[in-house]
Amino acid sequence: MIRYLTARLAQQIDEELMSAAGAFSIDQLMELAGLACAQTLATAYRQDIYPRVLVCCGPGNQGGDGLVAARHLGMFGYQPTVYMPKPGNKDIYQRLKKQCENMEIPIIPPSEDIESLRRALHDSDVILDAIFGFSFKPPIRAPFDSVLPLLNQSRLPIVSVDIPSGWDVENGNELGVGLQPNVLISLTAPKEGVKDFIGRHFLGGRFVPEYLEKKFELHLPPYPGSDQIVELASDKTPTKY
Amino acid sequence: MIRYLTARLAQQIDEELMSAAGAFSIDQLMELAGLACAQTLATAYRQDIYPRVLVCCGPGNQGGDGLVAARHLGMFGYQPTVYMPKPGNKDIYQRLKKQCENMEIPIIPPSEDIESLRRALHDSDVILDAIFGFSFKPPIRAPFDSVLPLLNQSRLPIVSVDIPSGWDVENGNELGVGLQPNVLISLTAPKEGVKDFIGRHFLGGRFVPEYLEKKFELHLPPYPGSDQIVELASDKTPTKY
Repeated sequence: MIRYLTARLAQQIDEELMSAAGAFSIDQLMELAGLACAQTLATAYRQDIYPRVLVCCGPGNQGGDGLVAARHLGMFGYQPTVYMPKPGNKDIYQRLKKQCENMEIPIIPPSEDIESLRRALHDSDVILDAIFGFSFKPPIRAPFDSVLPLLNQSRLPIVSVDIPSGWDVENGNELGVGLQPNVLISLTAPKEGVKDFIGRHFLGGRFVPEYLEKKFELHLPPYPGSDQIVELASDKTPTKY
Repeated sequence: MIRYLTARLAQQIDEELMSAAGAFSIDQLMELAGLACAQTLATAYRQDIYPRVLVCCGPGNQGGDGLVAARHLGMFGYQPTVYMPKPGNKDIYQRLKKQCENMEIPIIPPSEDIESLRRALHDSDVILDAIFGFSFKPPIRAPFDSVLPLLNQSRLPIVSVDIPSGWDVENGNELGVGLQPNVLISLTAPKEGVKDFIGRHFLGGRFVPEYLEKKFELHLPPYPGSDQIVELASDKTPTKY
């Protein structure tokens, strides 16, 4: 059985990958993670039927994954729009944002009020939720306390990255205020909080070397061929691994 | 018709991508380029029939693409070995090498003589040629003047990255001392020197924004779905685009 990670373990694996010993740069990992997110969305929601993707980005690293995914989705022929009400200020964030701007991907200015989100939702076919990642801790702070209900109310299909936004990383949607995604893409390994998730569940982050997989007893499933994602469960079957 | 690039143009596009305006880091571009190389090899040479890949890396950026490709090939289930007789000393090179070591990918020590290459070839099923890229200028210097003939003599199938090693970037294999690859993976756009290449020809580097594609009149073909590579020509048909 695949291992479901606590927030602390997820953090530890990330740190090891980017330590001097692991030798990965954040640019590399974010590029592969974001690509996996974009490919998951493309697998679940065809470009000809769901062309307009609202990519919702949080202020942390997961927002960076979202910006990378938005760029790749643009390359795949989708029409992404980035909603990033609280932009991160790390240098990498600025560069990833610039790369989106260079692709002429619309970015909703953070200063605008919640009406801009309402309008964007009206003009979207599917949502990519890259708001909160495994370092999220409740409570949900402004402006996201107003954002999450709007996303749920939109009735648009939602693809969540790693942990649906608003869910506790270990205890899931216990407070009932989190997003209700149709599709989930776990990165590196799934988190404890998504054990009971029902829907299509993918795994991405095909960069964990065997020594780390063994050290943390991850029991990752094999990825098919040269794909960057593997489907763990469809919406009709329980988790395969 | 797709544009075939001079060495100067290829250099210019690379610089624009990594300028403040282009905003890409070398880590990002190398990761996507190396992934495209690995996926090309995996498409042309199945892992169950050609498991042992000798990844030959030069001292420049293309050697870096090779190291990234070696890592991804390891992830895909291949058994890569890295041959890097003249390691680059940029920091990124060291990190990419460490990532390979972490995957327990054998790296032939650079100090060893040409016999180590002979042995490695004997134990390989296919070669990934990431020795010289678009900044190569003849003559071929030691140790590569001995390396290239050995690779050709091995009769192993060869997948070359961007420009087959030993070919002039603009004039091709005019001196007749270059590799004779079966498969070519051009990055960003093909180079003038490979216009007459016969074999399977792929394109990778799905990161060129439209404004650069237009500025340099690249006329890139569409990539299929969410793939990172597109086949330009099979070995039996002329270039499609």
